[in-house]
Amino acid sequence: MSSIGELGEFGLITRLTDRLPQGPAVELGPGDDAAVARAPDGRVVATTDLLVEGRHFRRDWSGPYEIGCKAAAQNLADVIAMGARPTVLLVGLAVPAETPVEWAEQLYAGLGEECEMTGTSVAGGDVVAAPRILLAVTALGDLGGEPPLTRSGARPGDLVVVRGRLGHSSAGLELLENGRDEPAELVEAHRRPRPPYTAGAEARAMGATALLDVSDGLLQDLGHIAKASGVRIEVDTAEVPVPAVLGPGGLRHVLTGGEDHGFAATVPPGAAIPSSWTVVGRVTEGAGVLVDGGAYRGAGWDHFRD
Amino acid sequence: MSSIGELGEFGLITRLTDRLPQGPAVELGPGDDAAVARAPDGRVVATTDLLVEGRHFRRDWSGPYEIGCKAAAQNLADVIAMGARPTVLLVGLAVPAETPVEWAEQLYAGLGEECEMTGTSVAGGDVVAAPRILLAVTALGDLGGEPPLTRSGARPGDLVVVRGRLGHSSAGLELLENGRDEPAELVEAHRRPRPPYTAGAEARAMGATALLDVSDGLLQDLGHIAKASGVRIEVDTAEVPVPAVLGPGGLRHVLTGGEDHGFAATVPPGAAIPSSWTVVGRVTEGAGVLVDGGAYRGAGWDHFRD
Repeated sequence: MSSIGELGEFGLITRLTDRLPQGPAVELGPGDDAAVARAPDGRVVATTDLLVEGRHFRRDWSGPYEIGCKAAAQNLADVIAMGARPTVLLVGLAVPAETPVEWAEQLYAGLGEECEMTGTSVAGGDVVAAPRILLAVTALGDLGGEPPLTRSGARPGDLVVVRGRLGHSSAGLELLENGRDEPAELVEAHRRPRPPYTAGAEARAMGATALLDVSDGLLQDLGHIAKASGVRIEVDTAEVPVPAVLGPGGLRHVLTGGEDHGFAATVPPGAAIPSSWTVVGRVTEGAGVLVDGGAYRGAGWDHFRD
Repeated sequence: MSSIGELGEFGLITRLTDRLPQGPAVELGPGDDAAVARAPDGRVVATTDLLVEGRHFRRDWSGPYEIGCKAAAQNLADVIAMGARPTVLLVGLAVPAETPVEWAEQLYAGLGEECEMTGTSVAGGDVVAAPRILLAVTALGDLGGEPPLTRSGARPGDLVVVRGRLGHSSAGLELLENGRDEPAELVEAHRRPRPPYTAGAEARAMGATALLDVSDGLLQDLGHIAKASGVRIEVDTAEVPVPAVLGPGGLRHVLTGGEDHGFAATVPPGAAIPSSWTVVGRVTEGAGVLVDGGAYRGAGWDHFRD
């Protein structure tokens, strides 16, 4: 089993990119100074995220395939959260030279597999040597002629709705930190998020006034909507779904845990809400986020503080 | 002077992005799940590069402003090398929490200043905590209705032409490694590349059949054109410009030094070549790169080997 250092930069790039199927959104794939992607809308949605070893993943807790899935998922979810269709991913990989080539191949297999769920192609990237593994993923998307679904459109009277898993990744991380690997459902949720990629289209159909994916914790992310929209958001914990598998700290995980990349939206009061979405609160005049009418302490995740 | 850890993730993002002017290509700038950029051509050119501390820059050799300029320049040059006009940059910054906020502000000042030279906007990004500084820059560009200028169009009979500084950054790095900081022109060239951003438009006017920016070394990058185009490239060192300031190792720096982000193109034999470009060789049938009719050893830069 050879190392990345033995294979070399250009050998590694060829090995990784030869296996990536290029979908219809890719006019020119890996191998030139830049990729060329189709942007039929005439606008392009663009987002970038960094995943740092030891911070966003640990190699003893997650395999390369799962890390690849997670890196793709969090960027695809950002594009979906704009109400757009993901088209291409660019992947920057910083990796120690002694890393086995197979590790990088598995990482790319995960990236490719997650992309396939949304019809997205890995169209380019960069690999460099570094003391620790870091992934820099950029996702592009197409709005299909629709306005973007931002964080700033929530209006007093709107309902607050959520979709997808909340708190599972956070609960799974807590298990791993305590040396446990059961319930497997939670540990798996931490290793590989499962964003419901249909949420963007569903939010459009509901006439959503704001949409985001929950990456920093539900309350903190609802705070982003409140701030951008100039409104208050009131959450009713009696309405918040807390699956029994989350255990005694379940509500805390659901309210403050990030990384599941579920979605939260605000929708007009008369909206037809599918059963896959749950109403957890409402938008009022004012500022900030209230939980059962009061403040909530320790509301989310700051990359430099927690 | 406060640290990034004291200011926190969201405070830092606000501080950095509030100062970024958003140009006409930006429909939605920083602050949402993703940015929205205009892509009037209906296609988008996209490239991403990583810059790792200790590998691509050293904080004792380069200030944050210069590192920002360099990070932007190498991505803008990639877009120009496709014959496109850069539109927006996304910037991922991994940084230790104890780094002064002012350091990040200066970095962004450099990014913004370099972008301004090409009318590009910093439209989004991500900041995370990490033990070492790493920059992940993604640049998007618009082709304005033209086909991309790839590496694969060179044909036997074409001339090989170059534009901009070659070897200066490499010579400057060698000086710094030997504890010297003169000639200042070379050290400055290492700290901040000066890609000639008009090269893309000039290459189109010449009817260029292939274009790239020289990032890994002239011979190695010409090798990429030779391989992608299925041709041989023959370089005549008597024609290669070697400024006296480069000193005794000048030709080696010009042939093998990267990071100046000058440009190399192949153009049809009858092309009208402006005086800012220099003919350094020609395209023939065959494979690989010949220097004065023979092989050249140690031709360039592999991130996992050098």
